[in-house]
Amino acid sequence: MKAAGVVVEYNPFHNGHLYHLEETKKTTNADVVIAVMSGSFLQRGEPALVDKWTRTEMALRNGVDLVIELPYVYATQKAEIFAKGAISLLSSLGVDSVCFGSESGAIEEFQKTTTFIRHNEPEYNERIKYYMGQGNSYPKASSLAFESLDGHANVLDLSQPNNILGYHYVKAIQDLNSHIEPFTILRSKAGYHDQDFDDVEIASATSIRSKLLKGSTLDHIINYVPHPTYEKLLDYEHTYSDFHGWHKLYHLLRYKLLTTNNKDLSFIYEAEEGLENRLITMAKKAPSFQTFMEFVKTKRYTWTRIQRFALHVLTQTTKEDMKPALDGEAPYIRILGMTKPGRTFLSEKKGALSIPLVSNINQSDHPFLTIERRASLVYALGYSGQHQEDFLKKEYKSVPLMI
Amino acid sequence: MKAAGVVVEYNPFHNGHLYHLEETKKTTNADVVIAVMSGSFLQRGEPALVDKWTRTEMALRNGVDLVIELPYVYATQKAEIFAKGAISLLSSLGVDSVCFGSESGAIEEFQKTTTFIRHNEPEYNERIKYYMGQGNSYPKASSLAFESLDGHANVLDLSQPNNILGYHYVKAIQDLNSHIEPFTILRSKAGYHDQDFDDVEIASATSIRSKLLKGSTLDHIINYVPHPTYEKLLDYEHTYSDFHGWHKLYHLLRYKLLTTNNKDLSFIYEAEEGLENRLITMAKKAPSFQTFMEFVKTKRYTWTRIQRFALHVLTQTTKEDMKPALDGEAPYIRILGMTKPGRTFLSEKKGALSIPLVSNINQSDHPFLTIERRASLVYALGYSGQHQEDFLKKEYKSVPLMI
Repeated sequence: MKAAGVVVEYNPFHNGHLYHLEETKKTTNADVVIAVMSGSFLQRGEPALVDKWTRTEMALRNGVDLVIELPYVYATQKAEIFAKGAISLLSSLGVDSVCFGSESGAIEEFQKTTTFIRHNEPEYNERIKYYMGQGNSYPKASSLAFESLDGHANVLDLSQPNNILGYHYVKAIQDLNSHIEPFTILRSKAGYHDQDFDDVEIASATSIRSKLLKGSTLDHIINYVPHPTYEKLLDYEHTYSDFHGWHKLYHLLRYKLLTTNNKDLSFIYEAEEGLENRLITMAKKAPSFQTFMEFVKTKRYTWTRIQRFALHVLTQTTKEDMKPALDGEAPYIRILGMTKPGRTFLSEKKGALSIPLVSNINQSDHPFLTIERRASLVYALGYSGQHQEDFLKKEYKSVPLMI
Repeated sequence: MKAAGVVVEYNPFHNGHLYHLEETKKTTNADVVIAVMSGSFLQRGEPALVDKWTRTEMALRNGVDLVIELPYVYATQKAEIFAKGAISLLSSLGVDSVCFGSESGAIEEFQKTTTFIRHNEPEYNERIKYYMGQGNSYPKASSLAFESLDGHANVLDLSQPNNILGYHYVKAIQDLNSHIEPFTILRSKAGYHDQDFDDVEIASATSIRSKLLKGSTLDHIINYVPHPTYEKLLDYEHTYSDFHGWHKLYHLLRYKLLTTNNKDLSFIYEAEEGLENRLITMAKKAPSFQTFMEFVKTKRYTWTRIQRFALHVLTQTTKEDMKPALDGEAPYIRILGMTKPGRTFLSEKKGALSIPLVSNINQSDHPFLTIERRASLVYALGYSGQHQEDFLKKEYKSVPLMI
């Protein structure tokens, strides 16, 4: 059985994702598609719009065969660690290929770039440091370092978010000595960060979320998502009345910041002198998460950087907790859901897996699962009353979703 | 100017408190009455029904001349430390007498008892240990130790809550070598813990709170509180729509317990092996504070003992933080409000005070005030939106209330 891997957030699953899935199958000629998907919290350091179980069902009903959870310790990290975690999971599962969307669309550009940077690594790192010293954020500094070093000889534009991720996928495949073959498809339509709809069928997840969180009815997004997504979002909205987001957790973050001294915050992952104080000071003044972020934001700290730190404060994830994640090799495979072909694929591979399969979160006391449980609890506290209990029941007692 | 001191919570100020004030003036022949009053949180480890500023105004309009804040570090402690903190404040202010309500009503019983226990201290402490070893709570064990030691020769019933407090007031006066003369008046009517109204004019604060928190209208308590209290409660209810209590803070406590490991909880004041775990386990299960308390409660841990620990968890008050409070000598005098006579008294004493007067909480960075500010922030988080800001503005920017 030939398997292709994809790395996704599906927040929520939209037409662009469907196109990506279909192209993945065509390009890689795979029998099954395996998605490594973020759980409760996402790379930008925010809660998923709808819970992981709903998103898993969307994925399965839209053509994914197996959904594996990307653990919190990778899912909420910068591109390099995020990519290593995800690729190591796909590699452990023995997929044949990985296919990612990018602004470039040409896999040889990625390969040329990883080779080029590998050959110039010390100088590249020096230049990143230099540009950060000039007050640039890490992503901006990396892109400037690459441009200045390479003098535009390589055509890969490393200032584009999907190119950056793709670069790290390809690099992770090499670093892990994996046999996975990388493919990329062109993301020609909606840009990653676009807030507005400018196409009749494809809109970015950001713009869809932004509409939903601002209270637009689902009719406004019906053209941009496949039917199973629409149905699940409708269900979700009927049950919970609104969507998840930082606005549902800010009161907890604020409480945490106002009762913790900066020494204790300094143990939190991504803490950095000065930033802790800034968060505490701004939490005192800011009545909403939006205001809080606007107060904290500077040129030096990107929105994402601050959100991620705030998230780790909220989930009490320390530097110590994260240490074992930094080498990027995922220690277990947690299955969130599968179709029949996904199940067949899994039984074929089962004997040869080098890391354990986890189908219930209580099955193992791996420290990463302790962090996952804590993150789930925090996510649950964004719900009220019975919904809290329902989500936690799913999270603790569920076996994988099967359709 | 002759001054009498009283130690109060006024949660809220009721007819029994008015009677106590009038009897205090009569018995001690004082020109002014000075109240040392708990702030945001009370001895039973719970938030005050209405904020300290509202309660200060009630006190002043009902006949108190000067309201001094009993700092959080004393106000939320067992009788011994609570009493020492309060008496040391009154002593620093140079009051001539203290008058407290008690089930006994006879001051010589208190004096006999302090003398008796002082003479038998090692044996008394041994017996307390013994009765605690039998699984009794500390208050119960103290009362059993006293009874067994004394063979009922002394008539003071140390199983009564106001007798216990009174005993510690008298003992604190002796320990501090203070010249304050103690008086007591009989609390003949509503018992401290009574949940029901069984008198036409006097009801315990507990029963009044219980009515209000269960949603009774203010008409139900109008006969049990003086008019200024009724007016202020009416105002408060119009503004905030309901009263403060643990139900407004449980979501924060729950979040805190679910994201903190038991090692970190073990640094919290009143933490004790086993109790931390119990709180974490029960927080997972209990959707409301009431259920949580019922789950945690055992014969060994009284309701109050657990509430106090939960409160220190909530306000992040550590053993280290509390250490300097245990000797009981208050380091500053924070004025919450005064009448004209109260002001005159203060100017008379000003030159002779051995500890600083604080009229704005930001005026000093004494560690006790850092704890006070944190406690105020937590109390404020029980309000929503603009009310939060309003309370904090009062707390941070206010000069004392003057009527």
